[in-house]
Amino acid sequence: MPEGDGRLVRVAVDAMGGDYAPGEIVKGGVLAAEETEVILVGPVDTIEAELAKQNAMHLPIRCVQADEVIADGEPPAMSLRQKPNASVAVAARLVRAGEADAMLSAGSTGALVASALQILGASEGIDRPVAGGPILGFAPKTVILDAGGNVDCKPHHLLSFAIVGCVYAQKMLGVTNPTVALLNVGAEEGKGNELVRESYPLFVESGLNFIGNIEGNDIPYGRANVIVCDGFVGNILLKFTEGLGESVSRWLRTSLGGRLPPSDIESLCDELVSLTNAADTFGGGPLLGINGVAVVMHGHSRAPQVVRGILQAKMAVESGLVATLSSELARIRERRR
Amino acid sequence: MPEGDGRLVRVAVDAMGGDYAPGEIVKGGVLAAEETEVILVGPVDTIEAELAKQNAMHLPIRCVQADEVIADGEPPAMSLRQKPNASVAVAARLVRAGEADAMLSAGSTGALVASALQILGASEGIDRPVAGGPILGFAPKTVILDAGGNVDCKPHHLLSFAIVGCVYAQKMLGVTNPTVALLNVGAEEGKGNELVRESYPLFVESGLNFIGNIEGNDIPYGRANVIVCDGFVGNILLKFTEGLGESVSRWLRTSLGGRLPPSDIESLCDELVSLTNAADTFGGGPLLGINGVAVVMHGHSRAPQVVRGILQAKMAVESGLVATLSSELARIRERRR
Repeated sequence: MPEGDGRLVRVAVDAMGGDYAPGEIVKGGVLAAEETEVILVGPVDTIEAELAKQNAMHLPIRCVQADEVIADGEPPAMSLRQKPNASVAVAARLVRAGEADAMLSAGSTGALVASALQILGASEGIDRPVAGGPILGFAPKTVILDAGGNVDCKPHHLLSFAIVGCVYAQKMLGVTNPTVALLNVGAEEGKGNELVRESYPLFVESGLNFIGNIEGNDIPYGRANVIVCDGFVGNILLKFTEGLGESVSRWLRTSLGGRLPPSDIESLCDELVSLTNAADTFGGGPLLGINGVAVVMHGHSRAPQVVRGILQAKMAVESGLVATLSSELARIRERRR
Repeated sequence: MPEGDGRLVRVAVDAMGGDYAPGEIVKGGVLAAEETEVILVGPVDTIEAELAKQNAMHLPIRCVQADEVIADGEPPAMSLRQKPNASVAVAARLVRAGEADAMLSAGSTGALVASALQILGASEGIDRPVAGGPILGFAPKTVILDAGGNVDCKPHHLLSFAIVGCVYAQKMLGVTNPTVALLNVGAEEGKGNELVRESYPLFVESGLNFIGNIEGNDIPYGRANVIVCDGFVGNILLKFTEGLGESVSRWLRTSLGGRLPPSDIESLCDELVSLTNAADTFGGGPLLGINGVAVVMHGHSRAPQVVRGILQAKMAVESGLVATLSSELARIRERRR
């Protein structure tokens, strides 16, 4: 880890992943290389042809050869066995070997998760990586997790999401002593489904700054820094937020038509979409609970999102996210013994 | 049932339930009595004092005495035993006795549910009443259920929500052959948590117009008429929608300040809140899966919401919602044998 030694953070970027790869990914890499070292992973000829279109000669960018690509929709684990030199796997191996500090891909999320798990490994106490982060610009200091693949959970899973979320809030959002809440259908203890009811006492005893249950209408108000739910609820909420933001934005465009200058309407609508579309606003986020920094990007990321994603990776490395998470997980394990 | 015989539908209104009872409830009752017969249930002296403030002499309104009230927060089942003459219970007994065609309360939801279950009974094949209806003005022909108390579900519960939802969409929204979808984290069969994965084949075989899974971002686009989820997910979504609508509305008020006339801004914000607040827009909805029409209202309902709620009750009676639901539940039971 390059913390404090003045060396640039090195981010291995899957140049072949995403709907606009390699063009927009390389372009984003070049822009981000003003602030960090970028390692573009993929067929070197192809990447160099893209780089030639940019003014990139003076920047800390290098290419690493990867012959193959795992496309969105290919079964991740099997594809990874059949294509050991896929760009996403090569990027992960650069991190494991200490040749990169972080990796990033806008390609198949499944392939990124599988590569991260197989090549970097999960943090002790985490079964599957956790996805999450801020979902609303109205509540910029609130993270929701899991919003990913952990759809069937036990109480100890929810507790691990809480720990992950606290470390995220501290390291990525600068919140000291983050408040933690369980997402529920009522405020009182004893409310909710079996999972949440059984998790409640575990949270009380955890030593976390647990403030109890919060309800759906509390989410936009940032009433807790870390909102914990299973990945089924979190994923539906995350996507619903994006869909609702788009719908409201369309309604707004129609309602304001002719009453404000078109460019004002466009900028209002764009602002609303970015307030309700975390993937767009943050460009992606680190996969949590992995022994290394691996940033997942939306498939339709373009250069500006790639830049933000690379800067998220840089922040995760510089803040010591992974090491802090490991020690927090160990502390809670110790406490529960 | 008064269908077709030209007689007015009779709605028993709990005059003592709700934050603005009895004043706003009675006022709403008077307004609704232009279109239906209203039976105001509560202390007759109190109600008559409220009626005296209105121009109600010529209208089909009568009062039925009830001595007690169950307040919000009182334990429903126990309160019902201790206060058998609570207004909400008296209203339910009027329906059971055939002296009213429907009941309505803006008081304690728990007390309404308990009264409806104990006095009217659940439809065969329904364990607990189901709450649900449209949640977004952007998708007015889409209902989501359960959004209520069924937080831990088995696949057959989800199937019963689908049946209930189809009958609701047909009878209350005028949709013929409503499409049904499972709310999920991915579109493909095999995605999702255990509950949804196990429900999928049951839905396929149900004879319903099942179109598969939909995701959170599909909700505002009305991609299915009936969206099925457990009550934990549905309740969180319903409340989140209200909270997000309010947040966006506040942001809009600030963003538009000084650029449009204040009254235009107010009317835009009001429209947005009503597009995202089903309780406000529809005034409430019938509790589904009960042997009778019982409309649940938001506690802070005022006269306009009470009118809408009474008209919802009237529509449920006139459309034969309860009888259709019973026969649909029987048809699906038969099919599964």
